[in-house]
Amino acid sequence: MAKSDVKVLGAWPSPFVMRPRIALNLKSVDYEFLQETFGSKSQLLLQSNPVHKKIPVLIHGDKPVCESLIIVQYIDEVWTSGPSILPSDPYERAIERFWAAFVDDKLFPSLRLMRGAEGEEKKAVVEQLTESLVLLDEAFEKCSKGKPFFGGDGIGYIDIALGSILGWLRVTEKISRVKLLDEAKTPRLVKWADRFCADGAVKDVMPETDKLIEFNKMLMAKMKGAPPNQ
Amino acid sequence: MAKSDVKVLGAWPSPFVMRPRIALNLKSVDYEFLQETFGSKSQLLLQSNPVHKKIPVLIHGDKPVCESLIIVQYIDEVWTSGPSILPSDPYERAIERFWAAFVDDKLFPSLRLMRGAEGEEKKAVVEQLTESLVLLDEAFEKCSKGKPFFGGDGIGYIDIALGSILGWLRVTEKISRVKLLDEAKTPRLVKWADRFCADGAVKDVMPETDKLIEFNKMLMAKMKGAPPNQ
Repeated sequence: MAKSDVKVLGAWPSPFVMRPRIALNLKSVDYEFLQETFGSKSQLLLQSNPVHKKIPVLIHGDKPVCESLIIVQYIDEVWTSGPSILPSDPYERAIERFWAAFVDDKLFPSLRLMRGAEGEEKKAVVEQLTESLVLLDEAFEKCSKGKPFFGGDGIGYIDIALGSILGWLRVTEKISRVKLLDEAKTPRLVKWADRFCADGAVKDVMPETDKLIEFNKMLMAKMKGAPPNQ
Repeated sequence: MAKSDVKVLGAWPSPFVMRPRIALNLKSVDYEFLQETFGSKSQLLLQSNPVHKKIPVLIHGDKPVCESLIIVQYIDEVWTSGPSILPSDPYERAIERFWAAFVDDKLFPSLRLMRGAEGEEKKAVVEQLTESLVLLDEAFEKCSKGKPFFGGDGIGYIDIALGSILGWLRVTEKISRVKLLDEAKTPRLVKWADRFCADGAVKDVMPETDKLIEFNKMLMAKMKGAPPNQ
């Protein structure tokens, strides 16, 4: 398929935009990365995702697909000749979907709360985040079965869902001066995170922490807000 | 498979519990319905869903599957000889997943807000709900392609996701004295809702509105809260 037939509408700092990009890289699919300008929405974005008006959007031919994890599943189902992102066994698929939803419904919202939190609230959010990360560390043990990734030998669905927020996790750690991933509590996730970020499908997509911190400063100054949402 | 090999942990009033029950009915899979007692959590539930401790849980053999839409996908992928719940085309699957997520992320949260809202807040929530339902009415036109259900000739993934909240939608309409589904704004959904509730896979699972209203009174008295969550 010609490069121009696959487009990703997005922005480099968005964890959700990283997901389809990593999935396309895993499948060796060339794509055009169309970056939205911060603070405005292109006509193409408004046409392609009229309901949520949010990035990322995958445009395949003339068909738009929205919502990052739905896009990842779409990519997995269309480009079947590449490595599988979801396993074939229905029970294993359900487990992968469970933990990916956990990242979006539990972990990421806590991470957003963390960056504005102070005092008792901060303490409570750190506890919640730590609890979630410990659960994910235990899930890694079960899912990976001694292999390098949640998905086994290669990056899979949970890897993409969780790995895409590592950049913002590190930003949050630096800004809040709290270590969230550490050898004592989440030893498996610490090693996994290094492997994930070094992978060929990820390393050119994962933003440097310092660059993200700069972006975050600009963002906070402009909107007193949180990182770009899905 | 013997009846005792498939269990659903749930409670009759929960819209989310209806989803796996409808999916199992569509696939003609017998199952045991183990109802949780309101206000407490059984040992089996705590063991089966230790992360969220919430219903529904499907227990297949000795394997628990959690989160209603993940369970529905699991059922679709395991019992492949029954009618398909998700279509086979990847793009159509993505569209079905998009609208199912829309029901959970946009429509249902507004519906919960509605029942405690008054004055200006109520007006804003009604507007938001109406907007969401009009979008779903338009989506019906596109997805059903002139057939009776979102899924075409038979009940599919969006039908289950949206249809399962019809009981609580009607309760909300009665309590709030606001018509949410009506012939003027959502003519297609009005007819679809009647067809959905009359379907053989649904009619014995969908609670009567009056029974739900009674349950809601008890619930409000006990917890000043919202309907049982996923």
